[in-house]
Amino acid sequence: MSTPKNFSELHAALAAASNPDAAIRAGAELRNGQLTKPPGALGRLEDLAIWYGAWRGEVRPEINAPQVLIFAGNHGIAARGVSAFPAEVTAQMVANFAHGGAAINQLSKLAGAQMSVHPIDLSRPTADFTQGPAMSDADVMAAIAVGWEAVDQASDLLVVGEMGIGNTTSAAAIAHALYGGAPQDWTGRGTGVDRAGVALKSRVVAEGLAANPQAAGDPLQALRCLGGREVAAMAGAIARARVAHIPVILDGYICTAAAAVLERLVAGALDHAVAGHASDEQAHDRILGHLGKEPLLRLGLRLGEGSGAALAIQILRGAIACHSGMATFAEAGVAGG
Amino acid sequence: MSTPKNFSELHAALAAASNPDAAIRAGAELRNGQLTKPPGALGRLEDLAIWYGAWRGEVRPEINAPQVLIFAGNHGIAARGVSAFPAEVTAQMVANFAHGGAAINQLSKLAGAQMSVHPIDLSRPTADFTQGPAMSDADVMAAIAVGWEAVDQASDLLVVGEMGIGNTTSAAAIAHALYGGAPQDWTGRGTGVDRAGVALKSRVVAEGLAANPQAAGDPLQALRCLGGREVAAMAGAIARARVAHIPVILDGYICTAAAAVLERLVAGALDHAVAGHASDEQAHDRILGHLGKEPLLRLGLRLGEGSGAALAIQILRGAIACHSGMATFAEAGVAGG
Repeated sequence: MSTPKNFSELHAALAAASNPDAAIRAGAELRNGQLTKPPGALGRLEDLAIWYGAWRGEVRPEINAPQVLIFAGNHGIAARGVSAFPAEVTAQMVANFAHGGAAINQLSKLAGAQMSVHPIDLSRPTADFTQGPAMSDADVMAAIAVGWEAVDQASDLLVVGEMGIGNTTSAAAIAHALYGGAPQDWTGRGTGVDRAGVALKSRVVAEGLAANPQAAGDPLQALRCLGGREVAAMAGAIARARVAHIPVILDGYICTAAAAVLERLVAGALDHAVAGHASDEQAHDRILGHLGKEPLLRLGLRLGEGSGAALAIQILRGAIACHSGMATFAEAGVAGG
Repeated sequence: MSTPKNFSELHAALAAASNPDAAIRAGAELRNGQLTKPPGALGRLEDLAIWYGAWRGEVRPEINAPQVLIFAGNHGIAARGVSAFPAEVTAQMVANFAHGGAAINQLSKLAGAQMSVHPIDLSRPTADFTQGPAMSDADVMAAIAVGWEAVDQASDLLVVGEMGIGNTTSAAAIAHALYGGAPQDWTGRGTGVDRAGVALKSRVVAEGLAANPQAAGDPLQALRCLGGREVAAMAGAIARARVAHIPVILDGYICTAAAAVLERLVAGALDHAVAGHASDEQAHDRILGHLGKEPLLRLGLRLGEGSGAALAIQILRGAIACHSGMATFAEAGVAGG
């Protein structure tokens, strides 16, 4: 499928995306019921394996080619002092990713995942969204295209992560535009600002919504006006995976905000995604609640980079190893309950 | 260290066991603070890596040789109908472990762990503990010795699991003897009994305590009078690991009850152990609360076999991969916060 060139084409691609085959799903459920364990004894692992198998069209699925995509972008609002780190750190961390020194490098390697880093116009930060839209139509579509085209069609699992100083504030503004509430419902410590920093973030979010009235309740306008290039790229990659039936593990708050744009655009657009973890950012739980997704892990991470989602690959691998590798009661000669 | 021959020798071995070197721990903490991430951004993974490194005596530890030990035993109380499965299933599942068909086989393989299965006198169930002690002194020490001697001194991480029809009732009786409360505080659905089955388990636990007054508040008597051979073997293996500074990931309710015996015997006996997961068995959370251990995973598992702990190996691996593999701010040329 060709890369969407405008909002209409992205919307149409998601609306036309097919769902898993019900017969495959039923076959995976049947197999699950025959495995040598009491019914339901593997808890959430059972649901995960069935969900994954259904999306891949395999009753006994395997994970052979997970992909981790890291997008990076710079934000005009970083100049407002919303982060504990200076904006230069975005490019420095991209170099760290390239040299294998970041957390996501270690976690991708552990998961056997192909990882690539996609800095997007770092020398051209988005506009300060308290003064008007962060991006033009052309800029947001270009960033969406970076994500869309970065997805390897041969991969069988996708994690998207990000780096972008200031981007928890961008995520908060998007979430506020999508779900309403108060600005402070959606802001938190990010990489480590203090109470005054959180209050500043809430003010910046409020100013952002005031400066971009077209963003309220319009998910793609929220992405354009309040997002960043890396946020748009994540949305593009998750959308491409939906169309291609590549299951996705969502990462932290920023990734989840990017994903939420798609679900608000077309209900069911995230049926191919599970929540990898709940981060320490309070608003992450709130947005996951809106999406109806229960996180697999809850370990107090607040790093981004796809780190929590990459760690959660191991949980999914465990689920699938059991589902596809265990003997049935009949095969093992074990008496059922 | 030679295998303890009686309760006094086991107690003495635990009381004499050494703690991690404070300088190594401080070195691991220092390294953690220098890694290219905001302080605390890896949440619980940071604590895990430091804990593991301290126990292994390495500032930058690795996991190279995890071991999974599965013990199996039969229980006299199974004849009371406390399980949804017949007692023959213990031996059938041992055969399934041997042939590689169980959940723990898949999860051990995924974790790169050496796994072995140790059935203990399956043809000789413990005595029905509602009629008196489940085991003699000689029997419980023999089972403890099986666990003690099964630990590979060259391993660097230990998971112990179990199979034994009726053993959630045994675990409930031990927990009740250790911590008091009401019998129903400690019983649950096990492998899948109904409400009447849970009520029966509570009655059996109450009868067990009444028939074995010496078990109340005496942890090793609780293990002997109310435990099973596989439960005693798990306690023996966890004790051996404590002495040898091999970190342990605890599994579900039965494993945790076996471990709790040691902590009640000598405070700090479980400092080398983390809780791998909280199972769906309600009393598991209660006993973890008594031990002050927060589970790494909460996925509704209720299988035993070491399954949840083996899955949690992957979380620990992730923690250590980040801790030992990431670049420092100085190495990467990234500006600190």
